[in-house]
Amino acid sequence: MNTRNRPERMKSNGQTAPVAMAMKSMPVTHALAFSWPQRPSFCPPGMQLDARGECVVNAGPADGHPLIQAEQNARLADYERTVRARFNGIVPALKRVSSLQHEEDFVKKGQEIARETLGFELPVQVLDDAWVSSLDMKQLYGYSVLHTFRDLAAELTLPLDRDPRDADAMLRFFIECGFHEVDVSPCADGRLKGLLQYVLRLPSHAVGRVQSHAGAMFDVEGNVKKWTETELRRFREGVPTLADAGTRYLKIAVYHFSSSAPSHEGCAAHGSNELAAAEAALGRLNAFRTAIENGFCCGASVATLLIGVDTDNDSIKIHIPDSKGEMSLYRLVNNAEQFEQTAGMNPAQAREHLLAAIDKAAKTVGWGQGEGSPDAGMRRLIAQLLENNCSQIAYVKSEHNGRYADIGHQEKFICVGEGFDELRIRNLTYLAQMYTVEEGARDLDVGIKIFTGLNIRHGLPAPIAIHYRYDASIPGARDRAVERCHRIHAAINNRYKSLVEQGLIVCSLIVQAKAPDSKLEVVDIAEEKFGH
Amino acid sequence: MNTRNRPERMKSNGQTAPVAMAMKSMPVTHALAFSWPQRPSFCPPGMQLDARGECVVNAGPADGHPLIQAEQNARLADYERTVRARFNGIVPALKRVSSLQHEEDFVKKGQEIARETLGFELPVQVLDDAWVSSLDMKQLYGYSVLHTFRDLAAELTLPLDRDPRDADAMLRFFIECGFHEVDVSPCADGRLKGLLQYVLRLPSHAVGRVQSHAGAMFDVEGNVKKWTETELRRFREGVPTLADAGTRYLKIAVYHFSSSAPSHEGCAAHGSNELAAAEAALGRLNAFRTAIENGFCCGASVATLLIGVDTDNDSIKIHIPDSKGEMSLYRLVNNAEQFEQTAGMNPAQAREHLLAAIDKAAKTVGWGQGEGSPDAGMRRLIAQLLENNCSQIAYVKSEHNGRYADIGHQEKFICVGEGFDELRIRNLTYLAQMYTVEEGARDLDVGIKIFTGLNIRHGLPAPIAIHYRYDASIPGARDRAVERCHRIHAAINNRYKSLVEQGLIVCSLIVQAKAPDSKLEVVDIAEEKFGH
Repeated sequence: MNTRNRPERMKSNGQTAPVAMAMKSMPVTHALAFSWPQRPSFCPPGMQLDARGECVVNAGPADGHPLIQAEQNARLADYERTVRARFNGIVPALKRVSSLQHEEDFVKKGQEIARETLGFELPVQVLDDAWVSSLDMKQLYGYSVLHTFRDLAAELTLPLDRDPRDADAMLRFFIECGFHEVDVSPCADGRLKGLLQYVLRLPSHAVGRVQSHAGAMFDVEGNVKKWTETELRRFREGVPTLADAGTRYLKIAVYHFSSSAPSHEGCAAHGSNELAAAEAALGRLNAFRTAIENGFCCGASVATLLIGVDTDNDSIKIHIPDSKGEMSLYRLVNNAEQFEQTAGMNPAQAREHLLAAIDKAAKTVGWGQGEGSPDAGMRRLIAQLLENNCSQIAYVKSEHNGRYADIGHQEKFICVGEGFDELRIRNLTYLAQMYTVEEGARDLDVGIKIFTGLNIRHGLPAPIAIHYRYDASIPGARDRAVERCHRIHAAINNRYKSLVEQGLIVCSLIVQAKAPDSKLEVVDIAEEKFGH
Repeated sequence: MNTRNRPERMKSNGQTAPVAMAMKSMPVTHALAFSWPQRPSFCPPGMQLDARGECVVNAGPADGHPLIQAEQNARLADYERTVRARFNGIVPALKRVSSLQHEEDFVKKGQEIARETLGFELPVQVLDDAWVSSLDMKQLYGYSVLHTFRDLAAELTLPLDRDPRDADAMLRFFIECGFHEVDVSPCADGRLKGLLQYVLRLPSHAVGRVQSHAGAMFDVEGNVKKWTETELRRFREGVPTLADAGTRYLKIAVYHFSSSAPSHEGCAAHGSNELAAAEAALGRLNAFRTAIENGFCCGASVATLLIGVDTDNDSIKIHIPDSKGEMSLYRLVNNAEQFEQTAGMNPAQAREHLLAAIDKAAKTVGWGQGEGSPDAGMRRLIAQLLENNCSQIAYVKSEHNGRYADIGHQEKFICVGEGFDELRIRNLTYLAQMYTVEEGARDLDVGIKIFTGLNIRHGLPAPIAIHYRYDASIPGARDRAVERCHRIHAAINNRYKSLVEQGLIVCSLIVQAKAPDSKLEVVDIAEEKFGH
């Protein structure tokens, strides 16, 4: 494998001072003709333009770890601060509004404060009614959280999604590694909501599908359907690779644990037991692969990968597949260790070190023993994910003193539905992925329990965004998504009747087209279409 | 198109006296080498072996309509009688058991009667408890209906499924007509449960998929997924046709109406309005086709066909697609009329007459005007369906005096789930197709309303078979199907709490592998796996 092809993209931002290691004398844009988009202003991951307009390997900042992408970290930090500031501004703003509620021109003054601090007006009816008893702060809080979510989703683009060529480059990289589709199933836990953008540093559009389920217990039958769709596109349209390209569908399951409070702040779905969480996720991966291999002829198979995330510091463990694609709970690379070991190296040494760590893990003896090493593409992919994660370890070190203050739940709202692509940031949303409350009741109950601790016992409601997507090319699909929102809303009102009656659950109904960069569309709750 | 290729299969049974019309002098088995299984004892539909062991066109019985298949009708009548007799025997048997309940050796005597008349023993606990107050007839009735259903499903093979070569032949015929998969969505109404075996005379395995929904309002998104699966098999495996074969997926939607009580016994989902039912079904067909055409490139499309059934006499109306595949509510062939018009003809004349009727309908002017005639394959298929239906019209004439006595609902039990392939017989089951009660509540409410009239107001319970299928090749799929049964059961108990407490709903939980000829497996209700 040629190190020049390994992508880790970094844009020069004038602040860091990368040591340009010109790649021999050959212009890299030419050498990579097959692999990367041919635009003079664009370099593949891990490279940047030098003064002569040629792509050169980015050697990382002189003053830190050799593999971190300082500019990307700065962008991510800026994004995180912006989002958190907006949500954290809600309570102070509402307190100010509240303090004026008995003044004569309260509605006018209240709205001025809301506009200035929150960026939107509060529901006038609630302000108007304040004189009767007192201001309904529960409703205002729920309204403000959900409005802020929608505003931020509309205003901000995710840091890694700003240049669409990044996703193109990453897709190319995946294909070079032998994977035509990457499908990630993390646990639904809010602390993994930053998995793609932060922990693994993957642009949203590079990952074909993200499905969050409690305990990473993804739906095997549903995943077979998704695989079928992907394969049909390849066979009919040759997208993204031709049917005979020999590439595979890669399914990644992501479990999590807490290194500082392993038996309390781990995965609730598996009783905060790291081994149980890993084993369950591995079981689903194996079930999925078996389903494909048994259900389809002609050597149909998929690649699988198991990753663990330490939600205290976002460092990852990657379980190394053997030559047959089998994984073990006891054969892995712990990236927290690799980060420390590579700290004093130069980038080339550090990358070699990561590859060596993979090879060493592949030779694990005892419980974790496998049959040989993973194929070259899988090895290359794992090395890249480890390298990407090094930037995040550095990020948590610099931005959060190496360990998040909120190692436990601190979500701002619950999302019920299919999950949204916007605001992929840690501990912001508890995601209860479901199509019916009947099936998803267990996940939703966990969410309500979390918010009972976070909000309800302080008299604040649990804000719930009910969010479903529709395929605009299918006639009637939007109406059916709207109907689903109403149906889920009715089921929530029924299941948590007492909380709803006390105003301790506030819902917002949202639909969104499946197209990239589509907007969130608010569904009017009053417009009850359900029940026809 | 060669008439020799048109299948209408008839086995000689010694009772009818078909006039053998030897096909020229060429052995037909040879002429049809491509189309039909090459077994000397087997002839394609519409043909039979003559004394010399050659397939000859079956000309129909000398004493009746030229197109009816008398032997098939006799088989179907026998099947229907057997099934109805078993269900109709339940109440008399239970009355006999009830009359003995205060005798000393009641349990022994009661079980003897049950074994003799019903073929199974009654739950001993219920009999044992009779002395306390009185025999719980509600529970015994529900138990007996559901047990009889399962017994019949295990004992009997559907009349048209007894020779698997019939399905093979029909699949070949569909392919010759240009359709590699036929997918039928009837209304969930129990009066359409005999659609395939009786009304259209299609072997079960010839039809890739049957999905019943109230008002034939099938799930467009789900159908796109099913289409995707079918197409992938073609592209990957060349089954049932090669990707470049030019064949299409055919989606048939079936609405219904009642000619003798049009505004009372039509489709409840559409207010017993025939035009509304047809229009809604046509809308779904068009939505499905649009979804495929918009969602997939390279000229992806599907064929669609709309059929109406008069549930009083099982005669059909077929809406004739034009050259672009578009249909109209006002361009159709009414087979009740064709049956009468062809009554005095010979088979060849009658078949020509049906084709002419299609061609005439295609030239409809005014509201129903289309752009030209359907393609040759579609025309051939429609003619065959009309001809098949002639047998059923004759069947209703001879077995039910031309009009069913039960033109309204007379179902014996409700099936909640995906629908079963066994016991495809008219007015036996109300099918509430669903994966959650949350989504299917409306359909289930209609079912409970129907059974309130049929059973509950007489003090008898509504028996409900909760039935889900699993793909045995997917690890854990059976467990998930069992879990779904329990979840649905819990949701039913919750939704119809009062009825359940009065013993007026009795459920049986059943799972079944997706493989053909798989058995119904009873799930123990006590073994409550749901809720983990």
